[in-house]
Amino acid sequence: MITFDTISEAAKRISSHAVKTPLLESPLLNEKLGGRLFLKCEMLQKTGSFKFRGAYNSLSCLSRQQLETGVFAYSSGNHAQGVAYAAKLLGCKATILMPEDTPSIKLENTRKYGATVLTYDRYTESREEIGSQIAKEQNLTLIKPYDYEPVIAGQGTIGIEVVDQLQDQGLEPDVYITPCGGGGLLAGSSVALHQRSPNTEIYSAEPEYFDDTARSLELGERVANSGDHRSICDAIVTPMPGEITFPILQKHVSGGIYVSEEEVRSAVYSAYNLFKVVIEPGGAVALASILSGKVDISGKVAVAVGSGGNIDPELFASILRNE
Amino acid sequence: MITFDTISEAAKRISSHAVKTPLLESPLLNEKLGGRLFLKCEMLQKTGSFKFRGAYNSLSCLSRQQLETGVFAYSSGNHAQGVAYAAKLLGCKATILMPEDTPSIKLENTRKYGATVLTYDRYTESREEIGSQIAKEQNLTLIKPYDYEPVIAGQGTIGIEVVDQLQDQGLEPDVYITPCGGGGLLAGSSVALHQRSPNTEIYSAEPEYFDDTARSLELGERVANSGDHRSICDAIVTPMPGEITFPILQKHVSGGIYVSEEEVRSAVYSAYNLFKVVIEPGGAVALASILSGKVDISGKVAVAVGSGGNIDPELFASILRNE
Repeated sequence: MITFDTISEAAKRISSHAVKTPLLESPLLNEKLGGRLFLKCEMLQKTGSFKFRGAYNSLSCLSRQQLETGVFAYSSGNHAQGVAYAAKLLGCKATILMPEDTPSIKLENTRKYGATVLTYDRYTESREEIGSQIAKEQNLTLIKPYDYEPVIAGQGTIGIEVVDQLQDQGLEPDVYITPCGGGGLLAGSSVALHQRSPNTEIYSAEPEYFDDTARSLELGERVANSGDHRSICDAIVTPMPGEITFPILQKHVSGGIYVSEEEVRSAVYSAYNLFKVVIEPGGAVALASILSGKVDISGKVAVAVGSGGNIDPELFASILRNE
Repeated sequence: MITFDTISEAAKRISSHAVKTPLLESPLLNEKLGGRLFLKCEMLQKTGSFKFRGAYNSLSCLSRQQLETGVFAYSSGNHAQGVAYAAKLLGCKATILMPEDTPSIKLENTRKYGATVLTYDRYTESREEIGSQIAKEQNLTLIKPYDYEPVIAGQGTIGIEVVDQLQDQGLEPDVYITPCGGGGLLAGSSVALHQRSPNTEIYSAEPEYFDDTARSLELGERVANSGDHRSICDAIVTPMPGEITFPILQKHVSGGIYVSEEEVRSAVYSAYNLFKVVIEPGGAVALASILSGKVDISGKVAVAVGSGGNIDPELFASILRNE
């Protein structure tokens, strides 16, 4: 079970390698919004996304034997890099299964961290099936991207950090929003927030047509996306909420927001223009949910997690030029 | 005179408004360089560059009367935004003179912070002359961009922060490099480093054809650039080292490096790809001097200051696409 203590222990475990990422404000944006918006800059985390937290925490919990045999992960790209780099730090071999249409920046960097990369077709093949088989055959320890407690606890450390960083400024968050794929980040950090700042309203943010979390929360049961759509938010187009993560979200999350592709592109641009950070589309949906006005933060202190910055240069350039 | 104490006092003065910007590393880059390279991320400073530090410190030192009458500054764009936002925070009117070919992101944001913006032709007119006249006529306090002690002290706070941040990790800088225009940042921070980390080798970084600091240091006297060239590094194309800053540089700086436009563009790309931050060309010359191999950091701990992130989207997109 994920408790505040599990997350605190994870925070200690990752502290020597993870970045305490800054919580940035834009005075011009605050003036426009009539509130205070803090962007939690996880694109500045090692490997360019929050996923390093959960990966390093998970690998730190393995036995020497498990580390020696190696780990396996399937991932749309950010968990891949997190696991690959954590494995490198701990002297462990990593094998990673990634969609063949993964942004090339993610594929290349995963290889550069020393992992063996295998690919599959995300629209016709099941990564869970291929993954289980490879892990079994080679006796590798599977590090699931979200339905795995040490991963959820690692991602949850963001919640503790956010509350600490605001407290240093004499503030408490009224609103907390994170991008949501399988729900590891949101589940972990909502447990931390519930303990440390129980009055904070917590929301999930998703891309249009991939609002499985929003709909599942509303219906009270896990429902899947139709599968008929594509999205530039490659990091968070998971089919449905996780088995372990969803019950946690049900306890702590007030509701789900979804944003259009246009709103995501505009948030990526604002992050460049006003915060001077590189944010990838999937990492920008929480920011987009506030900038689009879907979550009103006037008079409030709000935190949007910017969860990653691994965007291909071509797509980033097209957003900068509004093409 | 600029002393370590002046800079410590400035650090206290700006602490409630300035960001303690992160010092980021890229594991992939460190592996390639064979050393540890830390990027001091001043693009994440309020107004998108280090200039806010000196501006806020300077305005905090003015009398109530001076604040009420208003301040005046001439600037290629980053000092402009720093002064405009500092003035806004202190309830003071700011009038700013900027080159008419300033990147539009800098012009627009200076206006958004509430300043009155005037423009001039940087190739045919003297901003010092126009500036002195306007300041005199309207009785405004002139906040010079670098040859002004409270500005130098404010920029110098970066030096204290860098040493503190490395110390937290049990490290000391072997090499410290900053972009250099008029020399305010380098002068202030070199005084701080000399006190706190006397063995650090300090270098200035400049664009090719604007290496007035490098040449002046070599010749032992202030020499000017030819004026026949243009550069994408709009933030640091000052004609020659400052009167106040140069003697300080002579005391503490080991030498000057210059980098080509191609090396600058490549550093801007690396900052996007490996650090996930937006860096403007003039802010990237220190990083470029290391990435190009002109400063060898193998086996060393090096700090490159990334001094600003105010780059127009069109230029940034062209760098991302390698056009």
